[in-house]
Amino acid sequence: MKPFQHGLIEAQEAIQAGEYSAREYIESCIARTRAVEPHLHAFAYFDPQYVLQQLEASLCAQVPGRLAGLPLGIKDIIATAGVPTEMGSAAFKGYVPSQSAWVVEQLKREGAVIFGKTATTEFAWRQAAKTRNPWKLSHTPGGSSSGSAAAVALGCVPAALGTQTFGSAIRPAAYCGVVGFKPSFGSIPRTGIYPVAHSLDHVGVLARSVADAALVADVLFAQDNSDFYRHEKPTHTWPSDIRTTPPRIARLDTSAWGDMSVEQYATLENTANTLRAAGAIVETLKLTADFDAIWQVANTLCDAEGSQVNERFATESPIRVSQHIIDMIVRGKQVTSAAYIRAKQQQSILARSFSALLATFDAVLTAPAAGEAPSGLTNTGDAKFCIPFSVLGAPAITLPQTFSANGLPLGIQLIADWGRDQQLIETAMWVEQKLERTIRFPPIA
Amino acid sequence: MKPFQHGLIEAQEAIQAGEYSAREYIESCIARTRAVEPHLHAFAYFDPQYVLQQLEASLCAQVPGRLAGLPLGIKDIIATAGVPTEMGSAAFKGYVPSQSAWVVEQLKREGAVIFGKTATTEFAWRQAAKTRNPWKLSHTPGGSSSGSAAAVALGCVPAALGTQTFGSAIRPAAYCGVVGFKPSFGSIPRTGIYPVAHSLDHVGVLARSVADAALVADVLFAQDNSDFYRHEKPTHTWPSDIRTTPPRIARLDTSAWGDMSVEQYATLENTANTLRAAGAIVETLKLTADFDAIWQVANTLCDAEGSQVNERFATESPIRVSQHIIDMIVRGKQVTSAAYIRAKQQQSILARSFSALLATFDAVLTAPAAGEAPSGLTNTGDAKFCIPFSVLGAPAITLPQTFSANGLPLGIQLIADWGRDQQLIETAMWVEQKLERTIRFPPIA
Repeated sequence: MKPFQHGLIEAQEAIQAGEYSAREYIESCIARTRAVEPHLHAFAYFDPQYVLQQLEASLCAQVPGRLAGLPLGIKDIIATAGVPTEMGSAAFKGYVPSQSAWVVEQLKREGAVIFGKTATTEFAWRQAAKTRNPWKLSHTPGGSSSGSAAAVALGCVPAALGTQTFGSAIRPAAYCGVVGFKPSFGSIPRTGIYPVAHSLDHVGVLARSVADAALVADVLFAQDNSDFYRHEKPTHTWPSDIRTTPPRIARLDTSAWGDMSVEQYATLENTANTLRAAGAIVETLKLTADFDAIWQVANTLCDAEGSQVNERFATESPIRVSQHIIDMIVRGKQVTSAAYIRAKQQQSILARSFSALLATFDAVLTAPAAGEAPSGLTNTGDAKFCIPFSVLGAPAITLPQTFSANGLPLGIQLIADWGRDQQLIETAMWVEQKLERTIRFPPIA
Repeated sequence: MKPFQHGLIEAQEAIQAGEYSAREYIESCIARTRAVEPHLHAFAYFDPQYVLQQLEASLCAQVPGRLAGLPLGIKDIIATAGVPTEMGSAAFKGYVPSQSAWVVEQLKREGAVIFGKTATTEFAWRQAAKTRNPWKLSHTPGGSSSGSAAAVALGCVPAALGTQTFGSAIRPAAYCGVVGFKPSFGSIPRTGIYPVAHSLDHVGVLARSVADAALVADVLFAQDNSDFYRHEKPTHTWPSDIRTTPPRIARLDTSAWGDMSVEQYATLENTANTLRAAGAIVETLKLTADFDAIWQVANTLCDAEGSQVNERFATESPIRVSQHIIDMIVRGKQVTSAAYIRAKQQQSILARSFSALLATFDAVLTAPAAGEAPSGLTNTGDAKFCIPFSVLGAPAITLPQTFSANGLPLGIQLIADWGRDQQLIETAMWVEQKLERTIRFPPIA
């Protein structure tokens, strides 16, 4: 087994035990990246010199941080001082910020090494990145955190930051067969991250195990006043450990959502059966009819807020943004303030209803996507299965479960009530253990 | 001295000491109200039977609450189960809610007696209530918490709840010569209160001393998930006591605000001198130019949100709302979602800037209004001096300081940074002590 195959916590332990050094771990990740990147295109920026310089600085620190010497990928809409941050956009070609995003500064305070900038769709919206699905290069890795998911799946990095407005962390994680964790809305500051829609934007973590994702999130759970949106903030109650009693799971009736593949449906069935066999209570949960509006709420908020962020590009000549962005601006301009305010109210009211529905459950079990990653590289897939939990601000995590007949990953998604991140992680660790998943790497390169 | 002349805490102590009973206190308030109400018109609903029934229930409670047996006025946009809640509006004539607002339920849990519903302008907006200024009946008491301020000033009740969107608690308190306290945005749930604009609506308390206002607020500081707007919530750190060291006060340079009367200016000057003589540091604070937009931000938020609340009335035939409401609906419909989102962002950004400006100060000293209550009963006065702190969500308190040549009250306003309610109260108690104010009642009746 090569060092890069180890996850964050495994690598920490191996370095501690003297199995290999922090430098050997990072060099193994660098070698792996060099080997796979020509096929994968997961990185928008990658420079081994930059990586090794940071490693030296991290190892010199008087007090080693909680992520000392460990490499992390950073989605390229997240500002990194001194190295490019191009937002997947021609408008930011060669842009090098002078200040890092809050999350980057926090990771560095904890000794992490920024391994590279991972490819993102344009402004974390719909125009695809160049990244390919590591399990099948002709398929999309999902978006918008395309590079983060692919890089983690192939072992370039043990973990990477992504973001999610609709389904941009959970979906690519599921398509690439890794763990994706989107904590509760408001728990990780977004200062210095290019916004899509501030009422929906979340920071997420992609990793190869629940514990690894939880470790990175734990380091980032904080409040920063510069994240201007003064939403209610969850109380931080980390760290968490695997739960000792079987959970009570609500299997969400997704019949109304349509489009689920037979294989994805079977993945949920099998998971439910496995968890029941392990002692979990699994009951069916049906959302009330008012939840049918949730996708429209997401579109209204996203169009209005995203339009406001990007409208300056629409009047440029020549225009440096894709038609997807122009379309969003046009739609956003049609949203009245009354419709926007109504959508904000619906968001709050639905979150309250969801809390009530979840009162007796530890987590919801549902699909992270309609099925395997679609073929082709222009469409990054449908966020339909993630959008409700982005609107609700509920913490969500996807775990890989099996593979489709095409050899592409299929996962499950677990969700808890807003602010119950610890409960979700403890339940997800229990589920992960029962699924007895062995981490496999794509056969590429 | 008659019992009604005692404030909340004084009455509590007198009842405890056996000076008079809780029933005698309330009967004194009832007699006072019967005497002055024909001149004052402070109440939208007042029924001594209802008051005495509640008193009996309160006195029977196994565990006496923190406000056991004490009478409070409730602004008539705040729902009270079983008794009328008319919102100052023809559209709600005779309306009796089946459920009380959260604040009313909480007051009753603490043993308080709902003494009556105090007159409000229509929907807490601009159409005046019938209430008169207790110091001069031909002058406005201010709005929109008109009846609450007048009833407290005259001794009908020791304290009353009001609300503030622009300046609706601070301004009438100043005009009527009582203490008005508007805690930090988000600290008191608004569930069951008719909204003006959810981004600006605050619950406020009117009383005759800082300690009395703080006691009522302390009982109400809580979080209720049914207040759908999931704004950041301040941490509750009550109760508070008078500070022992002189405060550091920022005298806000209000030159740009114009309109301040010579008497109001002299009131601020005299207060600053008194506080300096008592050991306080008083320095001039100038707001940066970006604060000039704050009144426009208030209008944009209020028009857009208020329009959304009331638009159903505009299409009615015959219309049961005033031209003020129609005008607001018309203006609100012209606010685009982009303009609304920009206003929300400005609100957050200005709040952050204000925090930074206040870092080294305990409180800001400024005017609660341009001067004395204007003559006439249709215009409730200008909220210009209160609006900034409603937009910022900063806790604000007004204290009566002196009287104008016309015999009308003139006050000061103290403000602290968002969430620093305890610091504000402690400072206001110190200021109140140095001002050596003797509580006087208007000579009416």
